Amino acid sequence: MRTIHVIGIGAGDPEQLTLQAVGALRGTDVFFVLDKGEVKSDLTRLRRDMLETHIPEGSYRVVEARDPERDRKAGGTAYSPAVGDWRSARADIYARLITEELGEDETGAFLVWGDPALYDSTIGILEEILERGTVAFEYTVVPGISSVSALVARHRTGLNRVARPVQITTGRRLAEGLPEGVDDVVVMLDAHQTFRQYADQDIDIYWGAYIGTPDEILASGPIAETAPRIERLRAEARDRKGWIMDTYLLRRNPGQR
Amino acid sequence: MRTIHVIGIGAGDPEQLTLQAVGALRGTDVFFVLDKGEVKSDLTRLRRDMLETHIPEGSYRVVEARDPERDRKAGGTAYSPAVGDWRSARADIYARLITEELGEDETGAFLVWGDPALYDSTIGILEEILERGTVAFEYTVVPGISSVSALVARHRTGLNRVARPVQITTGRRLAEGLPEGVDDVVVMLDAHQTFRQYADQDIDIYWGAYIGTPDEILASGPIAETAPRIERLRAEARDRKGWIMDTYLLRRNPGQR
Repeated sequence: MRTIHVIGIGAGDPEQLTLQAVGALRGTDVFFVLDKGEVKSDLTRLRRDMLETHIPEGSYRVVEARDPERDRKAGGTAYSPAVGDWRSARADIYARLITEELGEDETGAFLVWGDPALYDSTIGILEEILERGTVAFEYTVVPGISSVSALVARHRTGLNRVARPVQITTGRRLAEGLPEGVDDVVVMLDAHQTFRQYADQDIDIYWGAYIGTPDEILASGPIAETAPRIERLRAEARDRKGWIMDTYLLRRNPGQR
Repeated sequence: MRTIHVIGIGAGDPEQLTLQAVGALRGTDVFFVLDKGEVKSDLTRLRRDMLETHIPEGSYRVVEARDPERDRKAGGTAYSPAVGDWRSARADIYARLITEELGEDETGAFLVWGDPALYDSTIGILEEILERGTVAFEYTVVPGISSVSALVARHRTGLNRVARPVQITTGRRLAEGLPEGVDDVVVMLDAHQTFRQYADQDIDIYWGAYIGTPDEILASGPIAETAPRIERLRAEARDRKGWIMDTYLLRRNPGQR
C-alpha cells in the first residue's frame, strides 16, 4: 500500500521542524512539490535546504508539478465555489502524481508550511482522491508550528487572554466586521491590510511578516499609530522581495464592547 | 543577565518537540518544575524522559516548587479575579525561583505542555514579575505543537473549513452557548463535557484525550451518537489513570444556522 505523509514544516524557521517531522522526512521516498507559478524562490530554497539538512543525498526523489491557476478574481460569495473547482483541479494533479510517481510500496510526502490544519487544502484534497477510489493509499498528518503560533511567540504574547476565546479568521471575513463575542482575532490570508478599517478603535495589533526567516519583520502597538508603520514596512518588503506572507493578531480592549 | 526560556514541549508525544525546543533545552542550566499537588506522575515522567533523552546527565539542575492552590470553587464572573490572585501568587513563587535558584549569567526554563500561547499563564506571569522590577531577566518563547494541532492531526482533519473561521474557547464559555458566526469551535479546559448540551444539533465532534501519549483515546462522529461513547471512554480512563486531559472540535453543519 502506498503511504503519504502530510508534513507540517513550520512557519519558515527550519528549527521549527518537529522531531516527528524529521522522522517523516527521512521515511519519505518521493517529495511532491507544487510550483505556484509565482516567484517564491526563497520558499523553495528553504524547503530544499530542509531536505538536504535532514536526509542523506540520493535517498529521495523530488517531483515537481504545476499548481492549477486559481480564479482569484471571483469575489464575494463566489469564493467558495472557485476554491472548490481549484481543489478538484488540484486533486487531479495529486492523484496523477501519486499514481504515476509513487511505487506501490513507496512513501510520498507533501510539505506544508505552518500546520496542515490551518488554511491548507492538502488533507481535503487527499480525502477527495480517496473518495474517487481511483488510487488507494494510507496517509498520516504531522502537525507543524503554525505561523499563528510563531507570530505570538515572537511577540511574546498569548493567543487568548485569561479564560477568554480567540478566533482565527481571514482578511476577507474581517472586512465584513470584527467577529462577535471575541476580542482576540488572528487574521490570515489578508492581502488588503484590512486592519486599517479598524484604526479608529481601541485595538492593539501584533503583526509579522516572513516569520521565522532571516527577513522577519515584526511590529506591534495601538492600531491607530501602528497601522501606517505596517503599511510602509509591508510595501517596502513586498517591493524588495516580490512577495509577502504576513499574519496578525488584533487584541481589542474589552472596555470597547 | 539572567535568561529564561518558555519552551512549548508539545501535547504529549516527545517526538513533537521542535529542533528549536531541543536547542533551548540544551542551553538551559536550571529547569523549574511546578508540582500541581495532584498525582500526574505520567506527565512528570514524560517531561523527565525528554530531558534525559536530549541533554547530557549532570549538565542541568531541576528545581521543584509547589504551585499555589487555585480557588476552583469561584464560579461565574468571579473566575477572572480568582485567576488573577492565583497568577500573582504564582508570580511570587516564580520570582523567588528566578532570584534564588538561577545565577546571574545562567539560563532557566519553564516547560509548557502544548503551546505557551494557548491557555497558559507562564508568559503573563513573567511579564508581571518584570513589571514589579524586583529581578531582571531576558526571556524568549519557543512555540510548541498545541493539543489543538495534535488533536486535528490525529483525526486527519483541518481546524477550519475552506475560507471559514475557527474559534478556540473554553468549556465554561461553551456552556453559555455556541459562539456566534463560527461553525468550527475547539474547546479546551472542559471538565464538564459541555458538548452534551448540544447533542440535539447537527454537529460532528472530534474528541481526543492524552493526545500523543501511549494512552491516547480518539472518538469522532455525529455528536448525538458519539457523546455517550465519549462519556463512557472518559469515565473509564479517568478512573484508571486518576486524571484526564482532553480537547475537542465541534463542527456544525452550516445548514444548521
